[in-house]
Order: sequence, then C-alpha cells, then structure tokens
Amino acid sequence: MPMRATCATPRSTAERPMAGWRTIGVIGGMGPAATADFLRLLVAGVPAARDSDHPRILIDSNPQVPDRNAALAGRGPSPGPVLAEMAQRLMAQGAQVLAMPCNAAHGWAGAVRAVADDAFIDIVDAALAAAMVHRPARVGVIAIGATLDLNLYGRGAVPVVAADPARVQPLIDRIKAGDTGAEVVGAMNQIAADLVVDGADVVIAACTEVPLVLSAGAVPVPFVDTTAALAAATLAAARLA
Amino acid sequence: MPMRATCATPRSTAERPMAGWRTIGVIGGMGPAATADFLRLLVAGVPAARDSDHPRILIDSNPQVPDRNAALAGRGPSPGPVLAEMAQRLMAQGAQVLAMPCNAAHGWAGAVRAVADDAFIDIVDAALAAAMVHRPARVGVIAIGATLDLNLYGRGAVPVVAADPARVQPLIDRIKAGDTGAEVVGAMNQIAADLVVDGADVVIAACTEVPLVLSAGAVPVPFVDTTAALAAATLAAARLA
Repeated sequence: MPMRATCATPRSTAERPMAGWRTIGVIGGMGPAATADFLRLLVAGVPAARDSDHPRILIDSNPQVPDRNAALAGRGPSPGPVLAEMAQRLMAQGAQVLAMPCNAAHGWAGAVRAVADDAFIDIVDAALAAAMVHRPARVGVIAIGATLDLNLYGRGAVPVVAADPARVQPLIDRIKAGDTGAEVVGAMNQIAADLVVDGADVVIAACTEVPLVLSAGAVPVPFVDTTAALAAATLAAARLA
Repeated sequence: MPMRATCATPRSTAERPMAGWRTIGVIGGMGPAATADFLRLLVAGVPAARDSDHPRILIDSNPQVPDRNAALAGRGPSPGPVLAEMAQRLMAQGAQVLAMPCNAAHGWAGAVRAVADDAFIDIVDAALAAAMVHRPARVGVIAIGATLDLNLYGRGAVPVVAADPARVQPLIDRIKAGDTGAEVVGAMNQIAADLVVDGADVVIAACTEVPLVLSAGAVPVPFVDTTAALAAATLAAARLA
C-alpha cells in the first residue's frame, strides 16, 4: 500500500469532512447592532467551504427586554423573566448552545442558567479566559451600568480597574443611536489609553457596543473584544467532536 | 402664546416618538454571511435613539436548506418544503413580516407565500422597484443558478442582460468560503463593468453574496444591492403607521 494513501492529510477545507454542529441560540437585541456584530463574528469564525458547513443559528433580537440599568436602579422591572423566556423559546426551537451578546444582561445570567444550565455560554467567563492568556496583573474594563454595579468582572483572578462610567455611558448612548463616527472612536480610544496609564495591562471591552468603535490596533496593550470572545467560545461549545 | 411653542418641531430623534414595529422574521442561512449582512442593514436602517426603538427580529439561519441549484438540476430535493416550514415556525414565534435574503431561493417563493401570504416581502420585487427608480432601458443582472434558470428578474418591465454565470459562480463559491479579498473584488468589478458595456444602465447584484464584494462606488451606473433593497422594503412593511 503506497505511503501516500496511508498518511494522506486533507489539504484544503473543501477536502476535509466538516465537523457537525449543535444549533446555536442567540438571546439578542441588547443592543441590536451588537447582535448583528455577534452574528457576523459567528459566521466569520467558521472554517467553511460552503453554506452547509455552517451551524444553524436561531436569533431572537428583542430590543424590548426590560432595561438592565433601570432595573438595577429600582426604576423598572427585572429583565430576568424575559431573558429566561427567550432562552426557553430558543431551546424549544432546537437551540442546544445559548449565547447572550450583552455584558450588562449577565447580571441576570442566573435566570437564563436556571432554564438552560450548561447550554449557556457566559460572556464574562469567555472574556476573562481570553484576558488571562496574557497573564495580566490588572485588567482594565470599559463598561457601564449593571456590569460595573454588580462587579461582574470582579470574579476573575486579578484586580480590575474600571473606566469612569460617566465617560463611557454617553459614548454607548451615541453608539446605540447609530453614531460610530470619528469623535466617538477618538473618545473611546482615549478611555482605553487612560486605563493603561491607570495600570491595566489588558483592556476588556466589557460592553458589546464598545468593539463597534474600539479595535485592538488602537489599544497599546492586549485587547479583549467580549463579543468576539463570546463568539469563539460559542463556536467551540457548538462544535461536535 | 409664543410662536416658538406653537411651531415647535422635534429636532432630535430622541425627542420624536418612535413608530411601533411589526416583528420581522428572517428565513436565512443562504448563505450565512448574506444573512449577517442583512441583519446589519436592518439594524442600520432604523432611525433609533435607543434599543427599544428597534423592531424585534427573529432569525432562522439554516444552512441545511436543500441546495437550490442541485434541486433545479434534479440532483437533490426541493428546498420548498423546508423554506415553508421555516416560515411557519417564524410566524408561530410571532413574526408578522417575513424576508428571505437569498435571490435563488425565491425560485421557491411560492412555497413560502402559500403559508405566509402578504407577510412575505419578495427580494425580486424589492430589487426591481429600486432599479425602476432609475428608468433603465435594460437592467444588468449578476446572478447564478435558479435566479437565472428560472429567469426571476425577467418579470420586470424592462429587458434583462445577465452576466455569464460561468464567470460569477466561481466568485460566489469563493465568497461562501470566506474569501472577499482583492482578487474576488476585482473580478466582480470587471463583471459589473462588462455588463455596462453590454448595455445595462442599472446593475443589480441579484445574489446576496455579490454585495459582500461589490459596492456602488465600483459600478459606473446606478447599482442595486438586493440585500439592501430587501432590508428597506422589509422595514417599510414592518413599520406601524
């Protein structure tokens, strides 16, 4: 038997039999542009030669989820029940791996995990794991509202230094209103640079609107895009061995 | 009473009460990157000041829909029943307006319309309407497979000149495999330019992978991005008066 047949290794994606996938469910709409960014990253993250190499993805982009920050301030209902209901509906439709591309909503991750258990891929876990690769002494976090108030990133192994939410919030509001122009980009770059001055040796964009205007090239230390970290973790969990 | 109060007109989006929306359902995954592009365009097309100004969007990105071209060639099952089932499931989940960002799949639009009726927004209708604004004598169509074989764009009011599918198909295959590099862009630009030489005075990207590498700036006559035309028509249908 010729060696070539014995040790043949597929060279192109087209030749390689693709792994199967579990169906992915996305608890989305917080905000809608971040969900669109997440879908783009999920699709780009699949080594595919053709449509059928991709996983099935079910998305519920629901911008009517009760406001996370208002809930925390006691000015509105908890988003927990709505998030749990969205998770349940996605699973009833066949979703086997669930992701929620919004950091602040993870203040209510417990409500989702109560119905989804291990099927739920946590954005904070995914982002902290991506950050720890760089062995930081201190992680810098750009976030707002519930993400900071509930100290979601505080559960990591290293101290957190957070950007001033009073500087971040107005930029998030502008991004949510569709403004990703040079002024917003410049201001966000400055916030990242100031975090490094304050001692951060990794910067985490801990709000899924942030990477819509901030990218690795603009940050002088390793940068963790939480949307991208969640997409990678979701694909890893969805891939069948 | 001061004039100012009488003629006050809201100046910012934030001041304007937003119209409500019907829930949008997306029959997607053909291909996955085109569906991600469609979601991006839907979100960008909403004049929103905050998350809650957006419509709810339910997406089924199903890359396992039977191959449209294989079906037409008698080499595989019809995608019709699967597309109808996807439509039905989306409507059962609350979708009131349905869109399918894939031109070739519209060869089986009848199967979707049979269950969705007027809720279904047809990409060919949307694209032809966008093309007719420019009062063309002849529309140029960049398409493959079922879109050409079933002459989907032939139902318009003006003659169609089609790019050679033997030139288009290999580029679509590369885009579906994630290659949107300079070589693919250059080749697609040349196809558009040649259509104009052949008499087209509007060029229609009649495959939702095409606008991933071809944009208005590269086409010497008015350009219709069918994904964008469908997004605009879908938002128009979803907006409550």
